[in-house]
Amino acid sequence: MRGKGQWREEMDTIESWIKNKERKVTVVGGTHGNEFLGAYLVKKLEEEKYSREGLDINYELANPKAFEQGTRYVDEDLNRCFSTEYLKKAKENKGPKTYEEGLALHFYEKFKKDNIDFIIDLHTTTSNMGPTVILSHRDELSLKAADHLKKKFPELKVICDFVELEECYCLFSVAPSGLLFEFGPVPQGVLKSKQFLLMENVVKEALSFLSCLKEDDHERIDFEKGSCGYETYHVTKPVDFPRDEKGKIRGMIHPEREGLDFVPMKKGDPLFLCFDGENLNWEGETSWPIFMNEAAYYEKSTALVLTQKRD
Amino acid sequence: MRGKGQWREEMDTIESWIKNKERKVTVVGGTHGNEFLGAYLVKKLEEEKYSREGLDINYELANPKAFEQGTRYVDEDLNRCFSTEYLKKAKENKGPKTYEEGLALHFYEKFKKDNIDFIIDLHTTTSNMGPTVILSHRDELSLKAADHLKKKFPELKVICDFVELEECYCLFSVAPSGLLFEFGPVPQGVLKSKQFLLMENVVKEALSFLSCLKEDDHERIDFEKGSCGYETYHVTKPVDFPRDEKGKIRGMIHPEREGLDFVPMKKGDPLFLCFDGENLNWEGETSWPIFMNEAAYYEKSTALVLTQKRD
Repeated sequence: MRGKGQWREEMDTIESWIKNKERKVTVVGGTHGNEFLGAYLVKKLEEEKYSREGLDINYELANPKAFEQGTRYVDEDLNRCFSTEYLKKAKENKGPKTYEEGLALHFYEKFKKDNIDFIIDLHTTTSNMGPTVILSHRDELSLKAADHLKKKFPELKVICDFVELEECYCLFSVAPSGLLFEFGPVPQGVLKSKQFLLMENVVKEALSFLSCLKEDDHERIDFEKGSCGYETYHVTKPVDFPRDEKGKIRGMIHPEREGLDFVPMKKGDPLFLCFDGENLNWEGETSWPIFMNEAAYYEKSTALVLTQKRD
Repeated sequence: MRGKGQWREEMDTIESWIKNKERKVTVVGGTHGNEFLGAYLVKKLEEEKYSREGLDINYELANPKAFEQGTRYVDEDLNRCFSTEYLKKAKENKGPKTYEEGLALHFYEKFKKDNIDFIIDLHTTTSNMGPTVILSHRDELSLKAADHLKKKFPELKVICDFVELEECYCLFSVAPSGLLFEFGPVPQGVLKSKQFLLMENVVKEALSFLSCLKEDDHERIDFEKGSCGYETYHVTKPVDFPRDEKGKIRGMIHPEREGLDFVPMKKGDPLFLCFDGENLNWEGETSWPIFMNEAAYYEKSTALVLTQKRD
């Protein structure tokens, strides 16, 4: 398990990958059961036995019961069940207390037993984020993989430090390296063919990079400069909807802001339109919002997530 | 309750509306708990005590438990619980067998007791249908209300005979007249402010029409010609996704067809793209598809619904 999101002390994920004769990759879909693109894509690739030279690829439909029900989860959000503390408690319980607790222990033990080196986890969002990749850790292999994809798919956005302020709790943080893809806008419970085809191409390109990476291919990332050669977005904090005294939502993303993920939001820009007609403007520092109007974040009291852009 | 969707024998809904000194209208949102626009709009209008002269308006959040959970329904689809047969069985049961059965009986009895003349029911869809209105019956008042709205909002599409082949089972079919609005594309569990504002304007315009309608305003619809003076869409049948021998979905709406609700689909046009790369073309007569990729219809084995356009 990885700790807080500083630059990792051991930077050897590329060196060890290059030397690795058994490069093990897991591609996961359906961690959230109503995010259909990933769920159907892992089923497709598994049926096709899609493989790349030098890779041992394993495909997983992570939450089959939630997928069958067409819901995000059965009892709790599987992608929040992988912190050290959660797993410690889960191991102490006599039998899982939730369906997802059982899944989390199963996958944690499986990935550790199988020595999975790299996890690719496939998600969709209702927000207008286009194709986005989130790094599991700021390790060199994940950064270089994102760099390679960014060159092939220039529209791809790269997010580092998604859980900068707390310990990694996501499924893909179990392996030393990994990428989580978010494709939007895609409604929950729906297949969108254009985004499905793009996701398939991006995943295949990532596997191709992981298959082909050799010592002489790669230029070392200059960690001293804190830079990896391409623009990245760094999460600062979530922002809730405006609420009344009873805690009920009293406004929505402003029409002039709706759909503008990754577009800078400056002090004074309209952010929320309240049901009573009041406009609420953004009063903080210039930020680049993401996950605006993500359906699953309403229950997490999150209307959007702020990031800072680094070139 | 209304029977099969022929032109109604009694065409007097306008005459009786004009004479009516107690014009009773119910505006319903949240019949599906994860369709947020309608749910939040009825709450807003109720809090504002929005009224129009001569109208007795009642606002209802139809499925509060599903809304709280952010799901379409708790046990079954409330908007399929109003057929004569369903209600007859429900009355015979000693206590409701599902949460929605209780709601259906409650609303049926309330609407009948209160002599509700007109029901407006607010929905959203994940398909790209824009603002659409569906008539509860082909009665003159509903047709004239849609005609009025069509003139004010030319982008509005009008669908007649949604349940032409079977008895009306929808909540809004309990009253003699009514309109059901479908606004798309809106993901489930999300507020979209632009569409919210448009829905608010359309609902207020409909209430304005119902408030102001007088004898001398209106030109009679020429039912003999089977025409109501504007283009309408008439449902013919639903079309399922392509499936494998186990009944699993094996393809999705084709990229060239995605988003083209109300755009005619001709013989030979691409319709589905299968996961194995096969293209499936439309082989039937020219049709105008609606509800393409509506999330809630996956479980109803419906990828799209075919209509015929009449000018």
